[in-house]
Amino acid sequence: MMLIAASSWGQQSLWNTTTEDSPQINSDNSVTFRMLAPKANSVQVTGDFQTVKSTDMVKDEKGVWSYTTPPLSSELYNYNFMIDSVKVCDPSNVYQIRDVSSVMNLFIVGGGQADWYKVKDVSHGTVSKVWYDSPTLGFKRRMTVYTPAGYEYNKNKKYPVFYLLHGMGGDENAWMDLGRTSQILDNMIAQGKVVPMIVVMPNGNVVQDAAPGESNKGLIQPNMYLPKTMDGTMETSFPDIVKYVESHYRTVADKSHRAIAGLSMGGFHSQTISKLYPNLFDYVGLFSAAIGMEDKKTSSPAYADPDGKLKVQFEHAPKVYWIAIGKDDFLYNQNANYRKTLDENGYHYAYYESDGGHIWRNWRVYLTKFLPLLFK
Amino acid sequence: MMLIAASSWGQQSLWNTTTEDSPQINSDNSVTFRMLAPKANSVQVTGDFQTVKSTDMVKDEKGVWSYTTPPLSSELYNYNFMIDSVKVCDPSNVYQIRDVSSVMNLFIVGGGQADWYKVKDVSHGTVSKVWYDSPTLGFKRRMTVYTPAGYEYNKNKKYPVFYLLHGMGGDENAWMDLGRTSQILDNMIAQGKVVPMIVVMPNGNVVQDAAPGESNKGLIQPNMYLPKTMDGTMETSFPDIVKYVESHYRTVADKSHRAIAGLSMGGFHSQTISKLYPNLFDYVGLFSAAIGMEDKKTSSPAYADPDGKLKVQFEHAPKVYWIAIGKDDFLYNQNANYRKTLDENGYHYAYYESDGGHIWRNWRVYLTKFLPLLFK
Repeated sequence: MMLIAASSWGQQSLWNTTTEDSPQINSDNSVTFRMLAPKANSVQVTGDFQTVKSTDMVKDEKGVWSYTTPPLSSELYNYNFMIDSVKVCDPSNVYQIRDVSSVMNLFIVGGGQADWYKVKDVSHGTVSKVWYDSPTLGFKRRMTVYTPAGYEYNKNKKYPVFYLLHGMGGDENAWMDLGRTSQILDNMIAQGKVVPMIVVMPNGNVVQDAAPGESNKGLIQPNMYLPKTMDGTMETSFPDIVKYVESHYRTVADKSHRAIAGLSMGGFHSQTISKLYPNLFDYVGLFSAAIGMEDKKTSSPAYADPDGKLKVQFEHAPKVYWIAIGKDDFLYNQNANYRKTLDENGYHYAYYESDGGHIWRNWRVYLTKFLPLLFK
Repeated sequence: MMLIAASSWGQQSLWNTTTEDSPQINSDNSVTFRMLAPKANSVQVTGDFQTVKSTDMVKDEKGVWSYTTPPLSSELYNYNFMIDSVKVCDPSNVYQIRDVSSVMNLFIVGGGQADWYKVKDVSHGTVSKVWYDSPTLGFKRRMTVYTPAGYEYNKNKKYPVFYLLHGMGGDENAWMDLGRTSQILDNMIAQGKVVPMIVVMPNGNVVQDAAPGESNKGLIQPNMYLPKTMDGTMETSFPDIVKYVESHYRTVADKSHRAIAGLSMGGFHSQTISKLYPNLFDYVGLFSAAIGMEDKKTSSPAYADPDGKLKVQFEHAPKVYWIAIGKDDFLYNQNANYRKTLDENGYHYAYYESDGGHIWRNWRVYLTKFLPLLFK
């Protein structure tokens, strides 16, 4: 009787579901993808688990297309299927992430680095989508705030704050969805490798109040290229964010308890914000930073006298000034030149060089390397 | 120069994107779907905007398949494409929702009821994913909490609390993702139709600590049929939720400032919880409630002496006891019988009957009807 009821329930409230086991992570860490598509002419799988652009899947007698990878190293991977050359998500895998205007499936191969990206049986922080007031920009804006496990219980404890900035085309959701920030923080705090901290992930596009779909612009197509991303406005409006955070959360409001880092455009913002306000941050992280990519036509005070600003910043140098980039990153040379400038002036920094290019896989790794350095 | 850089950026960090304008909402509220698929043999569109199961799309000379609907009434709709009979999401539309194990695209036709579901230029509440301790169940569990705009600023103000429960196969994300709860609250509060309130959306599956993908079970396939959903455990552990909320948020902790409602299984839970704790809730909403669907083998005190419990509840009757169901709902008769029982005993309630069946479209409408009745 429950079965009959459940079946009626299904007919009314649900679409029929697909039941292929895909992706199936095998005991040797190879991964099998499957899709039922008897009428398709061709099916491929594309994704960052392989170096080729796509791999043909093979159809069996039931019309199930499949492909098994070689054993994969531990990582969070993304993929799509191509049905008759149309890129789609795997209908059997509900786990998806959006990168700008692309939606991709994800899976995690554990047993190494990607164990930081898993939800584990540890205490979890709270993740909030908060609207703060930006008097400088003249409107309210959305940001993501992670408060560590215990924040709600330890009502007299004050916490350091880490401001974590996204790249071009990203928004206040990017570090959570693509960067696995809350999982990394939960897991590294639980293991005692990272001190409990508040992580603030603002929206770095000053023309947006919120991520696509979360603002009154409606369900728009996300756009990689927005105006005013690197014209100094993010930098000059940044104190609005700090002011909101320090008046609404229990923070230790001094330089030695503030950190800022970001990827690509957000790495550039971290560089420029930390030197525009040299007394604000004792920890600075530049992840594949888009150094020197600012709008050269701007007259923003944020970009005036860069050498003088850098000198002032390093007169009371940050405790950690950390630069990371991949060997294949198209911004490698800009970062090498910037390191040369720091070297020539005797400004101390730490450097981490990885394989690979301008990709989220690297930014997740950089986050796990940078976090243990903070507030110690 | 920026263009060249941006292009390299793209090659490294992004998948190629699809640029079809789909779905395109036309000026007469018809909607055009499009997909580039020159090699596909057939493409259909399926979704709740039409009564037929699917509609064939037509290919033009460039290989773009398209279909334009008749003018649609104002609603939040969902749809999928079928490429050679495989159900997939529209590659040009990044907006998707998950209902149990199905992922569907969404779009909104405004100008009526669905204007409540849009993000508008109003003050927005904060939405948090919070882990609370459940001593009764013996582990920490995740819930979604909406605090209204102003909660962070009006630091002495206390708020009423509305507990909002999901149905079978749902979780603590369902009312946010499928129910558009934060948008409805933001918009109705901004228009003065609803009083500012805290909305608590717990996970009603007592065997889960969190939604699929958010727990340490990994990226599992979501499952419609979980054990212990209607065996009394949700009811007997519910005070843990109230206790957490009232000790961690600024609430008015009395019966006249507490409401509970839910859909389907959550409507059943709202019925049983509100009579198990007759002094807790002055506002009770049963949306397409799964009345009488409890596990008959359980000996839970939650289900003992139901008539006696109902009598006690209505001796100090809730200010609002609200029942809503669709004419085509498979639970219609159970609800009609329950209303008959209430009528025969002279227990007062309000009743709202809609068209349609056991679907989210109705539950969003019921929420917009129920909210204005609360805390007045």
